[in-house]
Amino acid sequence: MSTAVSVLGTGAWGTTFAAVLADAGCRVRLWGRDEEVVTEITHGHRNTRNLPGVDLPAGVVATTDLDGAVRDAEVLAVALPSQSVREVLTPLAGRVRADGTVVSLMKGVELGTDQRMSQVLGEVLRVPPRRVAVVSGPNLAKEIAARQPTATVVAAEDESVAQRVAACCASGYFRPYTNTDVVGVELGGAVKNIIALAVGMAQGGGYGDNTKATIITRGLAEITRLGTELGADPATFAGLAGLGDLVATCASPLSRNHTLGAHVGAGRSLEDAVTATGGTAEGVKSCRSVLELAQRHGVDMPITAAVVAVLHEGLPVQAMTQALLSRPRKDERA
Amino acid sequence: MSTAVSVLGTGAWGTTFAAVLADAGCRVRLWGRDEEVVTEITHGHRNTRNLPGVDLPAGVVATTDLDGAVRDAEVLAVALPSQSVREVLTPLAGRVRADGTVVSLMKGVELGTDQRMSQVLGEVLRVPPRRVAVVSGPNLAKEIAARQPTATVVAAEDESVAQRVAACCASGYFRPYTNTDVVGVELGGAVKNIIALAVGMAQGGGYGDNTKATIITRGLAEITRLGTELGADPATFAGLAGLGDLVATCASPLSRNHTLGAHVGAGRSLEDAVTATGGTAEGVKSCRSVLELAQRHGVDMPITAAVVAVLHEGLPVQAMTQALLSRPRKDERA
Repeated sequence: MSTAVSVLGTGAWGTTFAAVLADAGCRVRLWGRDEEVVTEITHGHRNTRNLPGVDLPAGVVATTDLDGAVRDAEVLAVALPSQSVREVLTPLAGRVRADGTVVSLMKGVELGTDQRMSQVLGEVLRVPPRRVAVVSGPNLAKEIAARQPTATVVAAEDESVAQRVAACCASGYFRPYTNTDVVGVELGGAVKNIIALAVGMAQGGGYGDNTKATIITRGLAEITRLGTELGADPATFAGLAGLGDLVATCASPLSRNHTLGAHVGAGRSLEDAVTATGGTAEGVKSCRSVLELAQRHGVDMPITAAVVAVLHEGLPVQAMTQALLSRPRKDERA
Repeated sequence: MSTAVSVLGTGAWGTTFAAVLADAGCRVRLWGRDEEVVTEITHGHRNTRNLPGVDLPAGVVATTDLDGAVRDAEVLAVALPSQSVREVLTPLAGRVRADGTVVSLMKGVELGTDQRMSQVLGEVLRVPPRRVAVVSGPNLAKEIAARQPTATVVAAEDESVAQRVAACCASGYFRPYTNTDVVGVELGGAVKNIIALAVGMAQGGGYGDNTKATIITRGLAEITRLGTELGADPATFAGLAGLGDLVATCASPLSRNHTLGAHVGAGRSLEDAVTATGGTAEGVKSCRSVLELAQRHGVDMPITAAVVAVLHEGLPVQAMTQALLSRPRKDERA
């Protein structure tokens, strides 16, 4: 019998991951709040609002019944906005099956608690950490939805849990690698949104590929410093969920963080940039949590600090780029 | 008295670096073989053939007198094609000043000897290794020539030599960091051309940013494996001369390796791709040397091997991309 998986969230990534699971042979239920979107997915095999132009496998059935979706799932994958996941799932505490696995598809750190998404899920749903996995990597939804070959990382404290989730989503075009470094994989995904904002700002301000490459390089270095301090394996940041995800996000005109950063870099206010991007971007919210986390652990994160200063404290974007490029440092590894 | 520096080679990078040195206050002589190019540089302050649209500082004086350029230089920077540097400089053996420093601006490994460029320079010019420095980083010539802020790495065995060279080229827009890991800095620069070819092939074949990011990530992993085996510091590959240079090269439509790879990926023969690119690319020659080096040291470099197979052994490019994306591997760090 194939695995019963529920995916929460009909955004681009939730819908795409539901399609990946269906292509891999799972029975998939996709939960969303919006009746119209849900009906179109189930009967029209399309999600025009969030994933236009993509034909979904017939096996993806959508529902507005959150309680049922959670209760019946052997594997519960969550792709909700990172700052609202707690509110949406609090009423579902204790409803996950005793043998159920929870999977975070989200990237971010919760404001106020500074928790990673797997921590929020475990706490809210009352599931022990070893049953919570995360999926992260160079995974632009639109390319995966077009069934382009893609590699990803499935991380869980318990290797057998990671393997179980990997088996659920593996297919000819979607290739999961397993990892037990949950902290590293999640931090890589959370911080790269902030680095993508910084790269967007520099590019919007007219800087070219040398500057972009420099910000990516130093950005990965500061992610790695924070992660190592928090107990992650530095090697994770050199892998698909660190470097890979960062490069994909910064390369893509599809990335919302990168796009929003470019609008800010071109001189727009945060408010105007959000409007121009068609919504806010994860990194705009996460950057303050990540900076708090870094400060609490005594880790220097100049790029993250600069992004916070530009977005939330009124620092002119030119001053930020200048500051990043002129930090006095003699030995590269110092 | 300002430092007397000679730069050998009037290509885009040699000409740009001469301008960087002049802006940093050095007396600069630029050697080239072509009378017309040399005259235009000295009297018109332009190098239309290799660096169109750029105004050079008046301090850059060009010459066709190779012997004089070498003999008079306190610092001799070399930007010749990697496979012809030995032939060009062999007649100049022993002519470098006894207190002179030699700087390699080149990226590549010599066919036949498998030597890095600094090794070739030291051997041919009869200068001991500790007096040979290398400059490498995310340094697209066109952006630097436009005086965009750029970071780079100056590496030499002897930190004081690295600092001397760094002092010669540092300016408001060009920011050198020093490093004593010459092997790591040079290998990063040599191998990234090969990875850029692989990324270009995948993109020319229609693959998107997920695949690009995956090849960059695994490419950096294989550079790091080779470098570590050859005595380099793994941290160098995570820095500006490793990751930074790789990302800049793969991001840029200006990169010749990337462009040539894209033509091959779109189905052209190597010969046609060279014509379409307007000349060959460094990685086309270096890839066999690097693979030889790796095999001799028992290091697995699947991307480099695939590039060699496509360019020189007739492997269809589709087979290469498929092979890279479907290598069986369960644990990401294995």
